[in-house]
Order: sequence, then C-alpha cells, then structure tokens
Amino acid sequence: MAKTDEKSGCLQTLKFTDEFYMGLAMYLASLAANIGEVPVGAVVVHRTKGVVGTGINRREILKNALYHAEIEAIDSSCKTLGGWRLFECDLYVTLEPCPMCAGAIINSRIRRVIFGAYDVKGGACSSVMSMFDMPFNHKPVLSPYILGDKCSAQLSEFFKALRKTKKRRRRYIPPTE
Amino acid sequence: MAKTDEKSGCLQTLKFTDEFYMGLAMYLASLAANIGEVPVGAVVVHRTKGVVGTGINRREILKNALYHAEIEAIDSSCKTLGGWRLFECDLYVTLEPCPMCAGAIINSRIRRVIFGAYDVKGGACSSVMSMFDMPFNHKPVLSPYILGDKCSAQLSEFFKALRKTKKRRRRYIPPTE
Repeated sequence: MAKTDEKSGCLQTLKFTDEFYMGLAMYLASLAANIGEVPVGAVVVHRTKGVVGTGINRREILKNALYHAEIEAIDSSCKTLGGWRLFECDLYVTLEPCPMCAGAIINSRIRRVIFGAYDVKGGACSSVMSMFDMPFNHKPVLSPYILGDKCSAQLSEFFKALRKTKKRRRRYIPPTE
Repeated sequence: MAKTDEKSGCLQTLKFTDEFYMGLAMYLASLAANIGEVPVGAVVVHRTKGVVGTGINRREILKNALYHAEIEAIDSSCKTLGGWRLFECDLYVTLEPCPMCAGAIINSRIRRVIFGAYDVKGGACSSVMSMFDMPFNHKPVLSPYILGDKCSAQLSEFFKALRKTKKRRRRYIPPTE
C-alpha cells in the first residue's frame, strides 16, 4: 500500500481504498470465526481521523441479541468521537446489515455503508427490503458487494466447517476396552 | 390493583394488564425526562417471570445513538434470562419503536410489542413503515396505542417545557450594577 518517494525517500501518503477497509473488516470477521461466532466484522472510518471504531459478531458468546458487529463498531465510534452523530463516517461490514443494524446506521447519521456479501434471508439494505429508500430522516449512500465473493467464501467456509464438526459429533464411536 | 378476598382476608392474585405495564413504562419515561432526555421508557415482561428488563432513553446523556429505551430493556432482559432469545416475552414502550429498535425486537424473538404514542416521523411499526409485515424470520404481534393519549401528552409536555426553557435563555437580560 505504502510507496517510498524516490526523491525524498519518504513514505508517500497511503491510499486507503474501499477494498483495504473491507480487508480489515474481513480480518476482524476471522477473529469472530476463531471464537466460534458467525464471521462478521465491521469498521467505522472517519473522513480525516481514519478508523474510529471496530466490531465483531459476539451474539452467541455474550448471549445477547444486540451484539452484532455493526452495533459494536457504532458503539465504539460514538465513544471515540464523543457524540452520537457520526458525521463524515463510513461503515464497512462483511455482511449486509440486518434491520436492527440498518436502523442503527440511520440513527447514527453514518454517511456511507459499504458491505460485502448479500444476506438473502435477513438483509435490510437490498435483499429483503431497502431500508435506506424509506422516508426516514437520514439516507446513507450504499456501496454493495465490495469484495463480495471473498466475504461470501469466508462465511461458506465457516458453515462448512461447522457442519463437519456437528457430523463428527453425531457419529457413533464404539467404546474401546 | 390488589384486592383483598372477603372470606380469607388474603390478597387476591394481582391482575397485571397491558395498561399496568404501560403505566410502569410511563414512570420510567418520566425518569428520562428528569435527566433532560426525551421521555421514552420500556419494560420487558416474561410470561411467568414478570418484569425481566427495563430501559429509558439516554441518547444525549451517554452521547450514543444506540441508547434507546427498547435497546436498554432488551439488553438487560438478555442478561437476566441468560440467552439472546427472549421467548414468551412482551415489550411495552411509550413511543412507537424506530427501525433500529424494531429490528432488535425481531432479532431477540420478542412475542408481542405494545406501544403508546405513534411516532409519525420515525416509527417503524406502522407510521413510516411496518417492519413486522416484512418477510423476516420472526413476526411479533403488535398492540398499538395502549394509553396512547397519556403517552402523547407526556411527550408534548416535555417538548413544551423545553421550548419555554430555550425561549427564556434567548431573552436578553440587561446586566445589573
């Protein structure tokens, strides 16, 4: 990402693209997978301040319906910036936000939402419904399917491994003498 | 609420109606008003265990877009019951839930939602949209406008008082010598 300027020998300004931040969200998602959660990661990026909040899915471990990656990222961003309006902030998340998270994005006035894989059964940004087209008081810009294939593959691999583990558990192992 | 049985002299079983729990939510809303927040209160009631979670609006004080009364009530209920599925639980709230809170209600599998006043500009349960009619994986039963007049009056009074305070602040007071 960083290139050295030939004349001065200094590092040039880093170019942080949507793909870079989505990669960061995917790394966070892999941390969620490591603790047995569905791999979803989220990053909130301020226009000038950079990353101001991160989050991973922790619903099963913390036994709480609210602990989605986006909610954790918005929560930590509000704490970092010291206010509930996340002006000039973009949210990167590996999976299409559910209605709760889409609502939280509207409430926190996030400027742009960039997501990876589509959630066909529960997505509220284009799959089941388009929350941001409804006449609420804030309309974030939507950039869908950034690194979508990779995010989908990450989720598929997790569920494949989960099914394997469950099958192994179900199989009868005769007692050894 | 409690009546004494004439024969035995014992207290009869208490009758906890929707109006009773909405009254409790209104009391919590008044606590929010006392700390300068928009008066919204919420109560989660389990079928057999009674009140398992309560919440008040604290968005301004905690400077966080997520701290709505319903979210606080669902959060505390998950902690009380030790799981993210709030089966056999009903949520009472003095104002129609916003999209974030309606999404959280779907995610936590709440059985029934009882709200007071309509939120014409931001309500996601019938005013701006009907979240529970969308094809998500859970559909709570909706009971709107329970003690609606009283909940509306509570909100109107708060905003009336707020406007008065602002006017008083704006008025020029000449310096005394």
